[in-house]
Amino acid sequence: MKVYELPAIMAALDVHQAMCAIELGFVAYSAGRVQVPPVQAFGFPQANGDCCIKSAYVEGSETFTVKVSTGFYSNPQQGLPSNDGLMLVLSASTGQPLALLADQGWLTCMRTALAGRIAARLLAPNRVEAIGILGTGMQARLQLEQLLAVTACREVLVWGRSDAARRDYRAFAEALGCTVRCVEQPRLVAEAANLLVCATPSREPLLQREWLLPGSHITAVGADASGKQELAVELVASAQRIIVDSRRQCSQYGEVSHALKAGLIAPSQLSELGEVLAGHTTGREHDGQLTLADLTGVAVQDAQIARCVLEVLQR
Amino acid sequence: MKVYELPAIMAALDVHQAMCAIELGFVAYSAGRVQVPPVQAFGFPQANGDCCIKSAYVEGSETFTVKVSTGFYSNPQQGLPSNDGLMLVLSASTGQPLALLADQGWLTCMRTALAGRIAARLLAPNRVEAIGILGTGMQARLQLEQLLAVTACREVLVWGRSDAARRDYRAFAEALGCTVRCVEQPRLVAEAANLLVCATPSREPLLQREWLLPGSHITAVGADASGKQELAVELVASAQRIIVDSRRQCSQYGEVSHALKAGLIAPSQLSELGEVLAGHTTGREHDGQLTLADLTGVAVQDAQIARCVLEVLQR
Repeated sequence: MKVYELPAIMAALDVHQAMCAIELGFVAYSAGRVQVPPVQAFGFPQANGDCCIKSAYVEGSETFTVKVSTGFYSNPQQGLPSNDGLMLVLSASTGQPLALLADQGWLTCMRTALAGRIAARLLAPNRVEAIGILGTGMQARLQLEQLLAVTACREVLVWGRSDAARRDYRAFAEALGCTVRCVEQPRLVAEAANLLVCATPSREPLLQREWLLPGSHITAVGADASGKQELAVELVASAQRIIVDSRRQCSQYGEVSHALKAGLIAPSQLSELGEVLAGHTTGREHDGQLTLADLTGVAVQDAQIARCVLEVLQR
Repeated sequence: MKVYELPAIMAALDVHQAMCAIELGFVAYSAGRVQVPPVQAFGFPQANGDCCIKSAYVEGSETFTVKVSTGFYSNPQQGLPSNDGLMLVLSASTGQPLALLADQGWLTCMRTALAGRIAARLLAPNRVEAIGILGTGMQARLQLEQLLAVTACREVLVWGRSDAARRDYRAFAEALGCTVRCVEQPRLVAEAANLLVCATPSREPLLQREWLLPGSHITAVGADASGKQELAVELVASAQRIIVDSRRQCSQYGEVSHALKAGLIAPSQLSELGEVLAGHTTGREHDGQLTLADLTGVAVQDAQIARCVLEVLQR
């Protein structure tokens, strides 16, 4: 079994190819042409950490993937990154481990950002007034980077918990050619931007319905485990199109889980990204609609991005 | 992250230390002092293969473990072993991957054999007339090897599907100092041996109640996934002591699952190995009892054996 380290993995990723593969993965997932066992999750409260194991096989593939990702949020105090992880790729015809992608969680970040890009392509309003980002971390950066491929807008508003983090984010976004305004309240983002991304580990709603511009789109990627929440349930309930990556996962712990539990939305209101991509249902229908993409991260994304990278690495 | 290959892993395993660690793991499991998410399982019918992912954290440990094991049963036709796998050990305080044990499934075989040894120590009859082995593969060999540490008996009966496999097994067992009789029917094993191990991938009962000697003990390790079965449900129902490694797993797909579904036994009749080891319940109570150990393989065994090996490797 070959072990590949992060620099080689980064060099091997063809972003456009990975996006296409992830789209096909979402379609296969929604069509039931995959095996995606329930996520395994660990909690390490004494170390402020968690770990999840996501595994997937897309029927017909030569390989399947087991992904381990960790988040230990006190690590930065020891000079270590919060997130780590790796992906194992195994042969679907012999079971042999083929490769270990020691990507330190980077492929997970990328496939999440690519899902955000796919969602925005399907759901963003025609005229983007400004891009609004909640969060200043790695994921908030990658999401912006990917959004720039689907909109000509270069006006960015960003909110994050610390002034220093907002300033760092501004420097990052300016380097991408954006005009950036840092704000001290999530409300100020929502009032000026109509293409919004929430990429925080928040455990309480950051955005309220009444702050939003008409016809906004929101992609929320933070609620990837039980107890996390970025959007008020009333906001979720008022969305005219609610697109989820996985009905099963989002109903368990995504943004929509809170609105479902509160009885404010019905399961029948949820459509999967793979269903929209396959043309079985609509994305945004008109400019006035509030649309929401709730992304918890599905293991088929991992399997697909790992396969793309490995194809290049093995050439 | 360090990658260790099989020869180094084999050299690093202290069998006695691993057995003690696995015993402590079973006790912790039964006491609820562990995190063991549900097993992830894949099926690859087109390749006659399957894969399972078992993960565990024993509270208080410095590490946790993710184990991937595969069984692709047509591999030998291509000159490859049927089983493969590996164990990943991660830090429970930072989440960082610490080591990959590329053990090709060997540690899984060993921890299963050690569970058989533990069960036999607790449950074997005082006077072992003969050791009876159903199966001739790697697991059937390791089980015998480990049993020799808990009984003075060196009489062995073995049954397997092919004559050649039985002859190979005889050579193996004779080299361990045993007197070996190969037989062509499982019945002939049960009629002469009272310490029985079933280690086959059978999908239909191999042993019937009426063939057994009084006071026999049976350890069954084959039913590690849905659809597998080595014992008649009436045999399971007639056991006076039924010890399982995991109530949850065994009730889902172990030997006892079939008897539970048939309504022949009640969940209250099951005791866990960790409960017996902790002294909360009894093992064998007298020589006349038919005892059964149903072992589906619990991820704490993987976590404990991996930890033992890694401690030596990192010295």
